Amino acid sequence: MKKLINKPEDVVTDELNGIVAAHSDLVRVHFDPNFIARADAPVKGKVGVISGGGSGHEPMHGGFVGMGMLDAACPGAVFTSPTPDQMLEATKAVNGGAGVLHIVKNYTGDIMNFEMAADLARAEGIEVEAVVTNDDVAVKDSLYTAGRRGVGVTVLAEKMCGAAAEQKRSLKEVADVCRKVNGQGRSMGMALTSCTVPHAGKPTFDLPEDEMEIGVGIHGEPGRKRMKLQTAAEITEMLAGPILDDLPFKSGDSVLAFVNGMGGTPLIELYVVYNELAKICAGRGVKIARNLIGSYITSLEMAGCSITLVKMDDDLLRLWDAPVKTPGLRWGV
Amino acid sequence: MKKLINKPEDVVTDELNGIVAAHSDLVRVHFDPNFIARADAPVKGKVGVISGGGSGHEPMHGGFVGMGMLDAACPGAVFTSPTPDQMLEATKAVNGGAGVLHIVKNYTGDIMNFEMAADLARAEGIEVEAVVTNDDVAVKDSLYTAGRRGVGVTVLAEKMCGAAAEQKRSLKEVADVCRKVNGQGRSMGMALTSCTVPHAGKPTFDLPEDEMEIGVGIHGEPGRKRMKLQTAAEITEMLAGPILDDLPFKSGDSVLAFVNGMGGTPLIELYVVYNELAKICAGRGVKIARNLIGSYITSLEMAGCSITLVKMDDDLLRLWDAPVKTPGLRWGV
Repeated sequence: MKKLINKPEDVVTDELNGIVAAHSDLVRVHFDPNFIARADAPVKGKVGVISGGGSGHEPMHGGFVGMGMLDAACPGAVFTSPTPDQMLEATKAVNGGAGVLHIVKNYTGDIMNFEMAADLARAEGIEVEAVVTNDDVAVKDSLYTAGRRGVGVTVLAEKMCGAAAEQKRSLKEVADVCRKVNGQGRSMGMALTSCTVPHAGKPTFDLPEDEMEIGVGIHGEPGRKRMKLQTAAEITEMLAGPILDDLPFKSGDSVLAFVNGMGGTPLIELYVVYNELAKICAGRGVKIARNLIGSYITSLEMAGCSITLVKMDDDLLRLWDAPVKTPGLRWGV
Repeated sequence: MKKLINKPEDVVTDELNGIVAAHSDLVRVHFDPNFIARADAPVKGKVGVISGGGSGHEPMHGGFVGMGMLDAACPGAVFTSPTPDQMLEATKAVNGGAGVLHIVKNYTGDIMNFEMAADLARAEGIEVEAVVTNDDVAVKDSLYTAGRRGVGVTVLAEKMCGAAAEQKRSLKEVADVCRKVNGQGRSMGMALTSCTVPHAGKPTFDLPEDEMEIGVGIHGEPGRKRMKLQTAAEITEMLAGPILDDLPFKSGDSVLAFVNGMGGTPLIELYVVYNELAKICAGRGVKIARNLIGSYITSLEMAGCSITLVKMDDDLLRLWDAPVKTPGLRWGV
């Protein structure tokens, strides 16, 4: 295992201390229970937007805390759900009196723990809504999931819900944005290599030197199929085709196209994939109105990529374009 | 070789087409000879700022073209210098009448070709200054370099020179910013793994499963030493110590600290390194006034990191904080 770490059991704490050292102008980190919150939280009268999940997917979610996106993020151990007390304390810390939205990726542990935290917060008088993202078209049911997995759409929903909350929309309205983005979003990913969870010390799965896995999950969960390595054009078609067919996206639709690196894939390859995706979308009459290209929801050092498309409307475009100031995503300010 | 590409010989063209598809609001791409220019170039009365070099280091340089940073970038083949005609055409395309600065990393091919392009541009009546970056303290002379290699400082110089040019400073003044940033900046990198140049098809060098290379160059050039893998704390000390001693950075100095990923290293590990770097700087009384953490000058899918420190003053801080709007670096707008 070759990693820039100290002890495997200290990775998340060391990373959080790095965030403290780097970004104390934007966020503060609470330890034990661990959560990252906006430096100015709670913002009075604004819906608080929270997410969380296992570490190892950076910059998601902790890198998206700040003005215009998340109010707090709860990092679990690597690839392990955070605990209800993290989510409860984060919920209390960001409650500005207008309620708190929990954005939850569809993994069994995350859902169970966020539900428990929501119940505890409600018992303390905080209004909580939860929206589950489940945009991965690769498989129905998976290693840690009943139903579809929540993946790339989560990043985009966090951005647009954060913007809606900044506009002082109500809890129901901010949750509606999340439901819409998830409902109109679809994703699929692929892996060229496995990744190694630090405390496991060996690759999560084996993938021969000439093979890839289509439809892989962000923790290395099995996908649709393993096959010999193909060209970027063929791989992009294998991801984009099922995504476009599933919603379905139709000629004339306007989309946000997100080409995401899994952590070990360089940017040059993501642009090669984006080029293929743009051709496929053009061929179907789907207009890419906005794009995001980079490694935003990762699986440690896994090589590979995922594609997410969200059907946009004027309101979503305005929410996407709104200013955001976080360590991992920033524009307009 | 596992990469998201089509044919090895088409990687750069496919990537550039991806940039066209993604960022035509910010940049335009000229093919044959290849260069990426600001969509609104030339900006009348503004110094044009240009850089270039082999591809495979993305987002550097093409991802840094836009308002507040580069006016143009010339991408060569992977790990191969661009040609003088690329640099000449880019120089002509961004000349707004106030002259053009060439920011050149210290590699023999880059220097030779940029010099030839500058001579040709001058013959056409364009004022050109060139500044060579040579911030890598790892080795004196290397595989493609006489003297020190130009690495991470280049990214930071491009940002600050771009801001100075936006203020309509003169060519000499913008070049002076570049000389200052390079003169007050030092870097060193390390590799956990090699990388594979697409048309070579096999790793540039071999590195056993339990070893790392300290002082590696961005094309995999040999570094200071190979040794067994150490902890992040020990690795960070091996990089930061020589950097701090070389300038030398002194107690009371204010610095911009840049922790860069080599392309295959996930963000979580870069924050672990940043945490160690912050402790080392604090221990020496060096104040980190600004930071940049992410993969900005890469070596394809190489795993590893580099550290760059630049001693800052009030002018450089203002130039760093000024708005920038490029595909790879954006804030304030």
